[in-house]
Amino acid sequence: MATVPLKSDEAAGAEARAVFDDIRAKRNTDYVNNFWRALANDPALLKATWERLQQVMAPGALDPLVKEMIYIAVSTTNGCSYCVHSHTAAAKAKGLTEAQHGELMAVIAMASQTNALATALQVETDERFRVA
Amino acid sequence: MATVPLKSDEAAGAEARAVFDDIRAKRNTDYVNNFWRALANDPALLKATWERLQQVMAPGALDPLVKEMIYIAVSTTNGCSYCVHSHTAAAKAKGLTEAQHGELMAVIAMASQTNALATALQVETDERFRVA
Amino acid sequence: MATVPLKSDEAAGAEARAVFDDIRAKRNTDYVNNFWRALANDPALLKATWERLQQVMAPGALDPLVKEMIYIAVSTTNGCSYCVHSHTAAAKAKGLTEAQHGELMAVIAMASQTNALATALQVETDERFRVA
Amino acid sequence: MATVPLKSDEAAGAEARAVFDDIRAKRNTDYVNNFWRALANDPALLKATWERLQQVMAPGALDPLVKEMIYIAVSTTNGCSYCVHSHTAAAKAKGLTEAQHGELMAVIAMASQTNALATALQVETDERFRVA
Amino acid sequence: MATVPLKSDEAAGAEARAVFDDIRAKRNTDYVNNFWRALANDPALLKATWERLQQVMAPGALDPLVKEMIYIAVSTTNGCSYCVHSHTAAAKAKGLTEAQHGELMAVIAMASQTNALATALQVETDERFRVA
Amino acid sequence: MATVPLKSDEAAGAEARAVFDDIRAKRNTDYVNNFWRALANDPALLKATWERLQQVMAPGALDPLVKEMIYIAVSTTNGCSYCVHSHTAAAKAKGLTEAQHGELMAVIAMASQTNALATALQVETDERFRVA
Repeated sequence: MATVPLKSDEAAGAEARAVFDDIRAKRNTDYVNNFWRALANDPALLKATWERLQQVMAPGALDPLVKEMIYIAVSTTNGCSYCVHSHTAAAKAKGLTEAQHGELMAVIAMASQTNALATALQVETDERFRVA
Repeated sequence: MATVPLKSDEAAGAEARAVFDDIRAKRNTDYVNNFWRALANDPALLKATWERLQQVMAPGALDPLVKEMIYIAVSTTNGCSYCVHSHTAAAKAKGLTEAQHGELMAVIAMASQTNALATALQVETDERFRVA
Repeated sequence: MATVPLKSDEAAGAEARAVFDDIRAKRNTDYVNNFWRALANDPALLKATWERLQQVMAPGALDPLVKEMIYIAVSTTNGCSYCVHSHTAAAKAKGLTEAQHGELMAVIAMASQTNALATALQVETDERFRVA
Repeated sequence: MATVPLKSDEAAGAEARAVFDDIRAKRNTDYVNNFWRALANDPALLKATWERLQQVMAPGALDPLVKEMIYIAVSTTNGCSYCVHSHTAAAKAKGLTEAQHGELMAVIAMASQTNALATALQVETDERFRVA
Repeated sequence: MATVPLKSDEAAGAEARAVFDDIRAKRNTDYVNNFWRALANDPALLKATWERLQQVMAPGALDPLVKEMIYIAVSTTNGCSYCVHSHTAAAKAKGLTEAQHGELMAVIAMASQTNALATALQVETDERFRVA
Repeated sequence: MATVPLKSDEAAGAEARAVFDDIRAKRNTDYVNNFWRALANDPALLKATWERLQQVMAPGALDPLVKEMIYIAVSTTNGCSYCVHSHTAAAKAKGLTEAQHGELMAVIAMASQTNALATALQVETDERFRVA
């Protein structure tokens, strides 16, 4: 149903297939999900996206589960169904508990609500919230 | 510049002023920020919003700093300038480091990018990402 | 601060000035607001937009104040600061009361919140909500 | 297809089931729609959302059908498929006519269009639209 | 699955059928796509939308393929699945190559990413980007 | 007014200053705009963003002016004021004419309008728009 064909390993060229192999190796799985197979229609875009994703989502000052929750928050607000599904699955794989998921939902809902109120009322930013 | 007047303590009625007092007490500050002063035009909405916010942002399965980062992610994606400013200030007050802020930015940017790609390509959700 | 100059009556060509005159006549005012002066950089777009707006916002099956509230709801969700300001002013000119404004805010906030929840949980539409 | 299981009455705990019962009683129906069954994974969130929804959507300064139309406007702009479906059904149940639905569509379309223009041209808000 | 019935030629009234006939004639096809059949529930809205679309998408200072790409960019950012599908099909019919599609995806992704960063950091517009 | 300080050349570390120098050299200007000075708070993010931007916006299957128009379309829909300003300036520098700007506005407005209609009516995608 995508706007481009999902590339199987056979249909993908060498550059895309190398990325597929790297995904399988790094994730320790046989499975390459549809997002990457769709991106494979442009191997350079596939490669750039996969490489940047690894850098950004690696453990650092924030732990990977926190990063997945932030990803879900953005994806929800953007209304990206695919992304909500895939990153919720990723978060669960990284240990997201039911209680954490519930609180994540509550914060996303609260922010959506106060965002709308601040915008509808056009509240001006307090001087103290600005960086000098 | 708001679409409603910001209510000073004097201009606010008793119900709104009681919320202002509770904000000052709970936050241990003299300052009531513009968002609440704008909401005070409808004291029932002010009260409901303030009470729900406290419940949602309290420590629980997620720590308060993580909640603030999720709030920033939603507010950014919704393009709420006021909310980005106020919750970035709140996150810093709760200990957000420069390194954490940088990684938060990187995750928000990455998610925004792959959200757009998944939507533009209309990638169908993989069966394994669906809950039975 | 716009990305195009705001056209004064003098700077506008005959086609744009005719629209300005029509706005003043229909609204019974001397004032032409910035939106139209910005659009006047493309007189055909100005004319098409002004004509369509009059058709859409005229009294019909819905009364004009209800239409303004719907306009505010869309403008808030799109984060259009200009539009929130101008249509809140228009709604007040058409009789929007403080109590109505407060309830409008509450509905917008509620919808924003449940929209986020339905999207974050990827709730499937119930069969009974679909049109046969 | 949700990211969480939809809780049947049997699978739901006592707190969630009490909300289901209240929904059935208040709406005078046997049916509990998927949104609530998804929220039931976090009974506290389910309860808070249901209670607030009743307060907000009750008749007041705005009539319930107007509130449903505002809800549809927000849900459309947020791109929430579930919410558009459920609130269009709710509006029809509250008497939305074909002519009203058509005008609602026209206003939503018009606002979306002028929102985009005002943002693309970065039109500055007129002084007279600001509250003193 | 729409919120309104899709009008067949038989179910449509004379005004809507005239638009259907015009679509078939102008596009040199027997096929009228679902969007128009849904809009046909409000013949005046159908007619206004179809007429404006023809004006806007006609060759002019921008060529029709460029216009389709801009349409895809907006539709993606709004998360409109129907529109992404229909305008990607339209762009391909107008000659969009795989390489162009890939670059379109890359620009949309890049813009989404820097939009998020500029908003999250609340970067103030440089004086030199403002029109005098 | 940003949520982070804008780094001057003096305040920036060696890695950020090297990016500033590269921006000046590649753009043949003395000026480094605020976006990059804000990003400089995280030199790695600054570098990755600048490098990717150059790759994506370089001439290829699409010419740079078309890419700038796509960028404006996305930025408008996301409501990013900074980005609309900076990329409209960039498009003008690359030769955008008034007539082209007007048509760009008209297409963005048209797409915003039909996006809203397709979503509000929940129109199902025609089989023929799907890729096999």
